[in-house]
Amino acid sequence: MHHSKAVKLEKIEHIGIAVRDIEESNALFAKILGRSHYKMEEVESESVITSFFQVGEVKIELLQATSESSAIHKHIEKRGEGIHHIAYAVKDIAVELDRLKSEGIEAIHQQAKEGADGKMIAFLHPKSTNRVLTEICADKNE
Amino acid sequence: MHHSKAVKLEKIEHIGIAVRDIEESNALFAKILGRSHYKMEEVESESVITSFFQVGEVKIELLQATSESSAIHKHIEKRGEGIHHIAYAVKDIAVELDRLKSEGIEAIHQQAKEGADGKMIAFLHPKSTNRVLTEICADKNE
Repeated sequence: MHHSKAVKLEKIEHIGIAVRDIEESNALFAKILGRSHYKMEEVESESVITSFFQVGEVKIELLQATSESSAIHKHIEKRGEGIHHIAYAVKDIAVELDRLKSEGIEAIHQQAKEGADGKMIAFLHPKSTNRVLTEICADKNE
Repeated sequence: MHHSKAVKLEKIEHIGIAVRDIEESNALFAKILGRSHYKMEEVESESVITSFFQVGEVKIELLQATSESSAIHKHIEKRGEGIHHIAYAVKDIAVELDRLKSEGIEAIHQQAKEGADGKMIAFLHPKSTNRVLTEICADKNE
């Protein structure tokens, strides 16, 4: 049984939060969430360092820019620290991206690309999503 | 077994999104999420109309202001539409609020108060939470 079209956005996979100093924010979120981050990962193609906390079925992903070209750097310059995006898990990212486009939702990425955490990802344009920067993602090996 | 102190923030209960026109946004999120909202609720004390979508264990809560005194109206004036807050489910809200305060996190509400969706709620101050407006909530009858 694998009805990709019926599944759509299955769950919230993670919430991305832009931070200036990931070590300080790791300590802060450990206090808030009552648990430590379980991994860190640098994504060179995006010029970010990430860290992950598990809360139920959702991950909190902290993102710190490693260069001024990073989208996270630009976000913090413009909006300050805080929530950057919501990512939804999908089974088949190509099918889902097509579905969303057919609904009139504008995508930033016309095709899925590699992201952090072993995922294929694509972002939707916030002007199509009530100004919520929205990612869809799927495991690479699914 | 009921170790409130060990449980801490159990899961993300909902993500609140500030919108200008909840009917338009209900239609938009139905397209994005591939499902309809399952309820609407007015919270007069907060001057908001809310609607809820279920995605896995998390709810997406759309919030439209019903008066200019509403925090949602002020948020949209200042920051535009978009993500407003993250709410975490806790077992015992008084215990959890005390724990967070003892960790040095500043609360907006020193005691829990009634919120939407049959919950007792309290907000933490974004200056203590990396500029993520954070709510903790518990079912009233737990």
